[in-house]
Amino acid sequence: MSAAEESPADGYAELWLTPGQLASWLSVVRLMTRLPWAIDAQLQRDADLSMIEYMTMAMLSEAPDWTLRMSELAERTSSSLSRLSHLVKRLEGRGYVRREADATDGRFTNAILLPAGLKKLESAAPDHVAYVRRLVIDNLSPERLRRLGQDADRIVGRIDSPAR
Amino acid sequence: MSAAEESPADGYAELWLTPGQLASWLSVVRLMTRLPWAIDAQLQRDADLSMIEYMTMAMLSEAPDWTLRMSELAERTSSSLSRLSHLVKRLEGRGYVRREADATDGRFTNAILLPAGLKKLESAAPDHVAYVRRLVIDNLSPERLRRLGQDADRIVGRIDSPAR
Repeated sequence: MSAAEESPADGYAELWLTPGQLASWLSVVRLMTRLPWAIDAQLQRDADLSMIEYMTMAMLSEAPDWTLRMSELAERTSSSLSRLSHLVKRLEGRGYVRREADATDGRFTNAILLPAGLKKLESAAPDHVAYVRRLVIDNLSPERLRRLGQDADRIVGRIDSPAR
Repeated sequence: MSAAEESPADGYAELWLTPGQLASWLSVVRLMTRLPWAIDAQLQRDADLSMIEYMTMAMLSEAPDWTLRMSELAERTSSSLSRLSHLVKRLEGRGYVRREADATDGRFTNAILLPAGLKKLESAAPDHVAYVRRLVIDNLSPERLRRLGQDADRIVGRIDSPAR
């Protein structure tokens, strides 16, 4: 640890973290708090969609036949199956998505993007992508963006790995 | 852009992003989705606190006289004032925090951490910090952690700056 010479932060917030570690962690907390909110606000305002609704339809738009099993869709959107079910039901009500039993195995349910959903996605994408570019993609060098993605993968990988 | 030779991603998800940019962005989305949830789950399970409740009490514990104006506390926890008011009311009901009008200017309300809140924080901190260490602090090199914090600051700074 190159931070060995730093003394632990004073205060009860983050016992045993150095001031530098604490500052970096609080920056990550701010990012986790502010960025999803900002993306959500843009999509709600410009397209009447939440970030997770947009992501759900985007994942379907890239799947063969615009179709994914609900369990796979939950995985790809980092959502619980019950949360995803509610969300897909709302998208179904708006005519963007439909659900049906998997033809090859009736125990599974598929979600399918409908033409109206694709149209909605196409109309929402330019503003959304422009905003993501402004905040993130064009705001970091290509190398830093690449590393940020790697760091994110490393942290999420640790969430999924069992504790020692 | 060193990624100029990459062709735009095929699909409607993120028009005009290269595959590399899209992959990095989706990694950031996963981080934003999974990390707050994981931290929240640990705190709820081990201390019956949400992440934002913990952060709120932690910020108060580091303030002089364990006291902050509600507006300042909202700023430091990246929370809206109305959301913070609900949260502080719940913490008040549990005897961890109290609110009172600012003695120097009655238009402002202060939040004050109570001894029971400090005790709660002290009992919650070790498990919380150990988990943050495992997922983030000890999972990245000191240099990468520092850069991650800088990137996060850069993105949050852009959220706060007006669009062109």
